[in-house]
Amino acid sequence: MNSILITGCNRGLGLGVVKALVKLSKPPQHIFATCRNLEKAKELQDLARCHPSIHIMEIDLMDFKKYDDLVKQIGDVVRNEGLNVLLNNAGYAPKSTRITTVKLKDLMLSLQTNTIVPVMLSKACLPLLKQASKSNGKMGMSVKRAAIINMSSILGSIEANTDGAMYPYRTSKAALNAATKSLSIDLLKDGILCVCLHPGWVRTDMGGSNAPLDVHTSTTKIIETLFNFNEANNGGFFQYDGKKLPW
Amino acid sequence: MNSILITGCNRGLGLGVVKALVKLSKPPQHIFATCRNLEKAKELQDLARCHPSIHIMEIDLMDFKKYDDLVKQIGDVVRNEGLNVLLNNAGYAPKSTRITTVKLKDLMLSLQTNTIVPVMLSKACLPLLKQASKSNGKMGMSVKRAAIINMSSILGSIEANTDGAMYPYRTSKAALNAATKSLSIDLLKDGILCVCLHPGWVRTDMGGSNAPLDVHTSTTKIIETLFNFNEANNGGFFQYDGKKLPW
Repeated sequence: MNSILITGCNRGLGLGVVKALVKLSKPPQHIFATCRNLEKAKELQDLARCHPSIHIMEIDLMDFKKYDDLVKQIGDVVRNEGLNVLLNNAGYAPKSTRITTVKLKDLMLSLQTNTIVPVMLSKACLPLLKQASKSNGKMGMSVKRAAIINMSSILGSIEANTDGAMYPYRTSKAALNAATKSLSIDLLKDGILCVCLHPGWVRTDMGGSNAPLDVHTSTTKIIETLFNFNEANNGGFFQYDGKKLPW
Repeated sequence: MNSILITGCNRGLGLGVVKALVKLSKPPQHIFATCRNLEKAKELQDLARCHPSIHIMEIDLMDFKKYDDLVKQIGDVVRNEGLNVLLNNAGYAPKSTRITTVKLKDLMLSLQTNTIVPVMLSKACLPLLKQASKSNGKMGMSVKRAAIINMSSILGSIEANTDGAMYPYRTSKAALNAATKSLSIDLLKDGILCVCLHPGWVRTDMGGSNAPLDVHTSTTKIIETLFNFNEANNGGFFQYDGKKLPW
């Protein structure tokens, strides 16, 4: 994997994936790490000082008009090699509520952040991903060739839902899973692998302090799993350790 | 079933369900039929002239502030009996596009119309549905007691997606299915049945002229199926003839 674009890298899983990637024996040449607010990404900035492969990109992903500029900036760096991986990681999880207290603005914000942003960013990055896929045309499907990885959640599994509630988060992640399946079909001819991933229940600001997994364990396994993905995984829903999950 | 609220009744399936209901040997006492624009609902108006059980309610469902008033109007009619069924039927389906041409505004409008509206309207109607459920407390789960029926689509099935594309419609219907599952869990204690339904591929403005089913066949079967639903169906995804569908 020569290059990867990861969204939501100021903290949590996004930051964890960046950390795990630079520690690889063969780290990517270019890690494009987006954050909404540079001032709130001190740890990412410190990391970037030691690792010139990290390109920090400040962008509010709800500002869809800025996508073209983001893609242009990445294109100027990767040139003819294109972009190998788009990891749609940035997410929003409002507090859980039952149906009696669900809020309109939480539904709007979750569906925009967790569903619409990944779809629109996938669309914007397509020329770069296609270029990477072409450059490695003889490879099978793989993150070393070209891939869109959508950070979903087991909470987006309709089958696995036994607790109810969480309308904004659950609906937006189920919708993201649906989009991933369509992407995997639409982009098969271009050799771009599309998969959705459940990172496990991780001790982040989002996952809370009771979560069983630490960020290091989750992200290390995620990267291992990413490198194992091939044609057989295209269009599927997997957790951090590669286990297949139900829709 | 004494009373039912159906959204999107100016044409297509919504209008078809109203027509099929008034033809029943024991039709509901009150059919609340919403439409966005009264002027575009001539056929519904003609039908209502012959059937005083039909209460036409003009409302733009994107105008969430009007839900309280809608619920109050229904409450004034049904009184202590409550509302037996909310049928979230109104939907939006933009033209199909591949990922290369998907539009932001189609994603926004689909997710708002097909996911957020049914969730927020379910929340608003809860007091009326709970009242109906209590009034018929000795019954098992059934549309004769209390139910939320969400008009979904096989296109919202992630498992059944073999054609790709249709991001706005597919994501919004998968999200609606996810919401239905949560509703079925949250409202189990209240005895409110929650189910999502695929109407079949029907010859409507949305389904197009190549669809194999006519509105009459689909809606007649849908009503038969609705009356057969019980506890065992709660939280499930079924097509017009009762066949279970995968998520």
